[in-house]
Amino acid sequence: MDFSFDERTAELHEKLTDFMAEHVYPAEAVFEEQLAAQSDPWSRPPVIEYLKQKAREAGLWNLFLPDPRFGAGLTNLQYAPLCELLGRSPHLAPEALNCAAPDTGNMELLADFGSAAQHERWLTPLLQGEIRSAFCMTEPDVASSDATNIATRITRDGDDYVINGRKWWSSGAMNPNCAVFIVMGKTDPDADRHKQQSMICVPRDTPGITVKRGMHVFGYTDGSHGGHAEIVFDDVRVPADHLIGAEGDGFAIAQARLGPGRIHHCMRLIGKAERALELMCRRTSERVAFGKPLAEQGVIQDWIAESRVRIEQARLLVLKTAWLMDTVGNRGAHSEIQAIKIAVPSMTEWVIDKAIQAHGAAGVSQDTPLAVLWASTRTLRLADGPDEVHKASLARRELRKYR
Amino acid sequence: MDFSFDERTAELHEKLTDFMAEHVYPAEAVFEEQLAAQSDPWSRPPVIEYLKQKAREAGLWNLFLPDPRFGAGLTNLQYAPLCELLGRSPHLAPEALNCAAPDTGNMELLADFGSAAQHERWLTPLLQGEIRSAFCMTEPDVASSDATNIATRITRDGDDYVINGRKWWSSGAMNPNCAVFIVMGKTDPDADRHKQQSMICVPRDTPGITVKRGMHVFGYTDGSHGGHAEIVFDDVRVPADHLIGAEGDGFAIAQARLGPGRIHHCMRLIGKAERALELMCRRTSERVAFGKPLAEQGVIQDWIAESRVRIEQARLLVLKTAWLMDTVGNRGAHSEIQAIKIAVPSMTEWVIDKAIQAHGAAGVSQDTPLAVLWASTRTLRLADGPDEVHKASLARRELRKYR
Amino acid sequence: MDFSFDERTAELHEKLTDFMAEHVYPAEAVFEEQLAAQSDPWSRPPVIEYLKQKAREAGLWNLFLPDPRFGAGLTNLQYAPLCELLGRSPHLAPEALNCAAPDTGNMELLADFGSAAQHERWLTPLLQGEIRSAFCMTEPDVASSDATNIATRITRDGDDYVINGRKWWSSGAMNPNCAVFIVMGKTDPDADRHKQQSMICVPRDTPGITVKRGMHVFGYTDGSHGGHAEIVFDDVRVPADHLIGAEGDGFAIAQARLGPGRIHHCMRLIGKAERALELMCRRTSERVAFGKPLAEQGVIQDWIAESRVRIEQARLLVLKTAWLMDTVGNRGAHSEIQAIKIAVPSMTEWVIDKAIQAHGAAGVSQDTPLAVLWASTRTLRLADGPDEVHKASLARRELRKYR
Amino acid sequence: MDFSFDERTAELHEKLTDFMAEHVYPAEAVFEEQLAAQSDPWSRPPVIEYLKQKAREAGLWNLFLPDPRFGAGLTNLQYAPLCELLGRSPHLAPEALNCAAPDTGNMELLADFGSAAQHERWLTPLLQGEIRSAFCMTEPDVASSDATNIATRITRDGDDYVINGRKWWSSGAMNPNCAVFIVMGKTDPDADRHKQQSMICVPRDTPGITVKRGMHVFGYTDGSHGGHAEIVFDDVRVPADHLIGAEGDGFAIAQARLGPGRIHHCMRLIGKAERALELMCRRTSERVAFGKPLAEQGVIQDWIAESRVRIEQARLLVLKTAWLMDTVGNRGAHSEIQAIKIAVPSMTEWVIDKAIQAHGAAGVSQDTPLAVLWASTRTLRLADGPDEVHKASLARRELRKYR
Repeated sequence: MDFSFDERTAELHEKLTDFMAEHVYPAEAVFEEQLAAQSDPWSRPPVIEYLKQKAREAGLWNLFLPDPRFGAGLTNLQYAPLCELLGRSPHLAPEALNCAAPDTGNMELLADFGSAAQHERWLTPLLQGEIRSAFCMTEPDVASSDATNIATRITRDGDDYVINGRKWWSSGAMNPNCAVFIVMGKTDPDADRHKQQSMICVPRDTPGITVKRGMHVFGYTDGSHGGHAEIVFDDVRVPADHLIGAEGDGFAIAQARLGPGRIHHCMRLIGKAERALELMCRRTSERVAFGKPLAEQGVIQDWIAESRVRIEQARLLVLKTAWLMDTVGNRGAHSEIQAIKIAVPSMTEWVIDKAIQAHGAAGVSQDTPLAVLWASTRTLRLADGPDEVHKASLARRELRKYR
Repeated sequence: MDFSFDERTAELHEKLTDFMAEHVYPAEAVFEEQLAAQSDPWSRPPVIEYLKQKAREAGLWNLFLPDPRFGAGLTNLQYAPLCELLGRSPHLAPEALNCAAPDTGNMELLADFGSAAQHERWLTPLLQGEIRSAFCMTEPDVASSDATNIATRITRDGDDYVINGRKWWSSGAMNPNCAVFIVMGKTDPDADRHKQQSMICVPRDTPGITVKRGMHVFGYTDGSHGGHAEIVFDDVRVPADHLIGAEGDGFAIAQARLGPGRIHHCMRLIGKAERALELMCRRTSERVAFGKPLAEQGVIQDWIAESRVRIEQARLLVLKTAWLMDTVGNRGAHSEIQAIKIAVPSMTEWVIDKAIQAHGAAGVSQDTPLAVLWASTRTLRLADGPDEVHKASLARRELRKYR
Repeated sequence: MDFSFDERTAELHEKLTDFMAEHVYPAEAVFEEQLAAQSDPWSRPPVIEYLKQKAREAGLWNLFLPDPRFGAGLTNLQYAPLCELLGRSPHLAPEALNCAAPDTGNMELLADFGSAAQHERWLTPLLQGEIRSAFCMTEPDVASSDATNIATRITRDGDDYVINGRKWWSSGAMNPNCAVFIVMGKTDPDADRHKQQSMICVPRDTPGITVKRGMHVFGYTDGSHGGHAEIVFDDVRVPADHLIGAEGDGFAIAQARLGPGRIHHCMRLIGKAERALELMCRRTSERVAFGKPLAEQGVIQDWIAESRVRIEQARLLVLKTAWLMDTVGNRGAHSEIQAIKIAVPSMTEWVIDKAIQAHGAAGVSQDTPLAVLWASTRTLRLADGPDEVHKASLARRELRKYR
Repeated sequence: MDFSFDERTAELHEKLTDFMAEHVYPAEAVFEEQLAAQSDPWSRPPVIEYLKQKAREAGLWNLFLPDPRFGAGLTNLQYAPLCELLGRSPHLAPEALNCAAPDTGNMELLADFGSAAQHERWLTPLLQGEIRSAFCMTEPDVASSDATNIATRITRDGDDYVINGRKWWSSGAMNPNCAVFIVMGKTDPDADRHKQQSMICVPRDTPGITVKRGMHVFGYTDGSHGGHAEIVFDDVRVPADHLIGAEGDGFAIAQARLGPGRIHHCMRLIGKAERALELMCRRTSERVAFGKPLAEQGVIQDWIAESRVRIEQARLLVLKTAWLMDTVGNRGAHSEIQAIKIAVPSMTEWVIDKAIQAHGAAGVSQDTPLAVLWASTRTLRLADGPDEVHKASLARRELRKYR
């Protein structure tokens, strides 16, 4: 057992830490200003392109992608600590380094399962940060925790596939720069449970697509990051070669996408928690009430210590999960992937809540990043299945040990 | 000891329950539609005026005001269960019945301490629901939990007072219909701790007032309810007779305003929790996952039972506090007023959180009232002093019993 | 609504408060000394008889019994605040006033359902504090939360009933002074679910009874209070007139016994929590660490305030439940009786845990009453059905409102 | 980073796992029987010697000791997973392998700081499992969380030292086989804060020692493990060469002893939690209520999943701390050593509490190991400083990062 970074991780970690300090944190205020000044709530403030350029120059680009043909070729364990750093500024840093969801998952999926034509048309511009993408899986009318529930249909018709259905929480789809939707649907509802689904690339401007609205998250639209769209697909027709892999591969592809996605989410959450803890420490060191800094009050110290202890534990669990994925594969790491989904969002939510409380009314307002961090974190207790579904599943695996 | 409503309360409670069912709940969707359709985010959707008219006709108007010259003449204990009902639709019902903060506190304050001229100019139109008002107490640069910290100055200059200072979280001040700000400031910083402050009526259009911005609460502006303004007072000059009571009365007036305000907030929170519990029950009865309604899952039942148990306890504590205020006065009820501030927001937050979780992603979105209920509830753990300040104070009183 | 004591309650409350201060609290140390000095762990220290004498003289005797023929004739609501006071010294006060479980429930049951002969033989000496009794319901092999599971058989044989079965957690049965066991068993397993059971009086010295052992509660045997016995009934034969009521009445009698028992338990728990809070306040006021009394530390103050707030809420819920039982009956108060079972033990456990923590290692030792208070409180989260069973039932009732 | 065991750890882990299954678990019932049958509550049941013999034969002896001259020469990181296994049967396994507190700390201390004569007289028989020892540090009258508070005096008098003072919670001192007390006291109260203390070996039969009583932990005396003694030292005279190291070394020695002690405690706690989780899984798989195994109830599954997730995180934190101690030393691992003290006991307490609840009344009784596991675990939230002291200290370190 060894808890130290390997050489490459250590080097990139230092480089990225510097990059965050030099470029990203200072850009946060610029981002907010540009956002407030622009009329279109859905377009990206220009500072983003500036940061992307800087990241490219620094060689901090596409770090997430393990496939060395396309990306940095890092293992999950190597990328995880970098991903944590990105999470410290989650509205800027991931996109700045071309490591933002849902593009990361989509790029990985296209790299692994896409055809050469799909690589050329979508993967390449995504890798270059020229376009964005959306992932259309969740549906409003069925429990999203079970992929077999999916009601959207993808029907072969001559040389085309025709798509009909309704999706929501399609993150990124409101972004004017979003060029392609990767859509999950059923090609054969009569096949085996896990062979009914397929995935297909749908250019955003294909006729029959109606983007109905952006979903809100505690009052936020996440507009500047492409929002979360409700989309109707009404006889949307695309060429048959837009299918990713073969018919019936959808579930397997979704599963393959899931593990890394979970790790990325969770590492970013660790970074969010660290950021909130830092803000809590700074604020309480400066703010005086009843004659002494808040930081000298016992209850505040309790929050700070608990935060540190909880963050350390959660981080180790995520790192171990990354290591397992690298050594025994996603399937072998299944329980741990569930465990981090259960443990990390609620941990981060707790830390941010305390940081908010330590900031007083400023904490719930636009004057600190805490409120928006909180909202996105709370949502992750629901995203891809509520915690409770994962707990029940994890418990059944645990119980099986003793039968 | 007797836990039943008296006759008048029972009668009003039934009447108001019917009114909510007949008029208020059906208006919620109308309100959202009108809100989405209007261009000015700060103006009130017209359905509000309709509801006000209905409430006046039903004799459900100004129920909050214990002074029979001006209002319904109900005791705190009689009003509390009605206030709970209003909390079930907190964005419509309080205003519909002219029982919305901060007007309620302002009307009570004017009724108790205002001059005849102040009654005529502001109290009467407030009582008639023709204008709105704001209460300007909290300041960005000092801990709001200690009224003696206030930095705003109210300086006598001939026949006028001149006001200088910065306020924020002045709820209602963004409302175009808001006609008057009641401002707390110091007239004599050298007087005894609790005689330094005064309150004064400041017409909203007085020169020198700059409404800087609306504060956000998570992603919400609470625009349709008048928002929460940051306001700069720069040599704002009003006639001396705009002072409420005498110089140095400000702290006492604020204290008098506090108790009923706390009770109202807490009873509305009970209503919010009841609403969230109802939504949780309805949703989980209807939504099927893994072959049975969510409501048949043990974890969901645990949430429902815990919610019921916590709500019942909190309600009783608020009612007892109301009874104490009526029988021994606000001062005699001091510990209990602190206790409900500590107990009720966190209880309601817990219930709403569970209701959100039971709704899946819909729970954090605009498709249920839960997310916005949650945001306003979370904020009440901070409003007029974070919970921790009240806990420390309550503990010191408790400890004093044994010295 | 009225939260004040009626005259009789107020008078008895004051009298009992004085009695506790004058007689009971000072006797606690005596009790411990006598207990340590005696060789038989199951016999009662003599100070108990002294206290019983004092209570009789003070007219504080059999306060629990609502039937004025036999007891004080107090309503549940009148008795509840007195019961709370008894809970402050739970190993002495209840027995001192002849208000100790399981005798209270047994006396009430005999008063309501017993024959004249049963009154003479057992109720009278119980009322006079001359004998003790045990209640034998729980069985080791079946879930005790469902009375219909009971496996013990009570079989008619000529003029006798013959009892066979195994019971455990029969509180009081190890007490040398225990004269009678009230045993629940099935007389007709083929009858309707709730007509299968009967209750019968079994003199303790009846042949065929084997008291196997005393059950431990976190290392305690509760020896001085009669312990918790495991008992085997092997062809135990008693005259047929020992049956209480008629065959098939057992379930109804158990239900009738349940409500008051729950109220008594919960009010004593409120008293325990108050005692623990008092001990926490006293200890932390006196104990100095890092240069100041523990009571000045924020975390300690948080515990104290939270304790006060939780106790107040729980007490009100218990009192309301008592009022409901008096006004609409046990059946009408069903949900509330469940609610207090859910709310109160965990509240008291929390308060005692914090009091223990504030006492350091002394808190878990024999040097304070906290550890033994904790153990008995923790057990009440399990006694007559784990909390989870009650929560599921309460939730189903709540859900039914919306169907 | 690498989360796999090294070869030696893997080998020992497998061997010890087998040893536990073959010898230790089956001995638990034997231990209880022998304990119940013996008249002296303080002597060791004979099965212990049998297990010690077996462990010696298996080469599983003194694994804790990193000094290869005396023990297995394992690093903290290598020993930690073995220590966890011992924690699964904490009343048998540690002693069976001669890895029981407080002997482990005492042996390490004598190995590192003792003289050759001390090695011969006490270390050798301790290493051979022939005698036991006690560590006398905590005092009843001062906060044990600050070593500088110590009131016991060790005074030079000619060729002797004379010891006066009162200690309590001296674990192991009631054991008839305990031959030596290692006593902390002040040799020079006027020296620098951390040079005032010294440690000295005191043979148990030295005149002037009075073992007053065994302290209870909830209802347990831990009699069979040597209990927790209160001891008075009244002019206890020992030769000067019994001092360990030099005068003034006491604090440094105590600090050196602390880190490994904390790691051992915490790893055993992980083992206890695993054992409790296993018992919970087994019980709920077997026990049927309301027509299905408890394990199929959602609330139970929630407990099991939460337990698994919490245990995994806590274990990783302890392992990382062990690694830090091995790589950067106890001082460099200071924050982590505090963090595990904060995190692990409360985690294990939580898991055991849920396991108890899942067992019903059996869970609090002598029929499962859960109640006694719980009591010793709860106590560790207080032992060597309550959690709150460690949290405050950890928070101050965290805050210092931002100053």
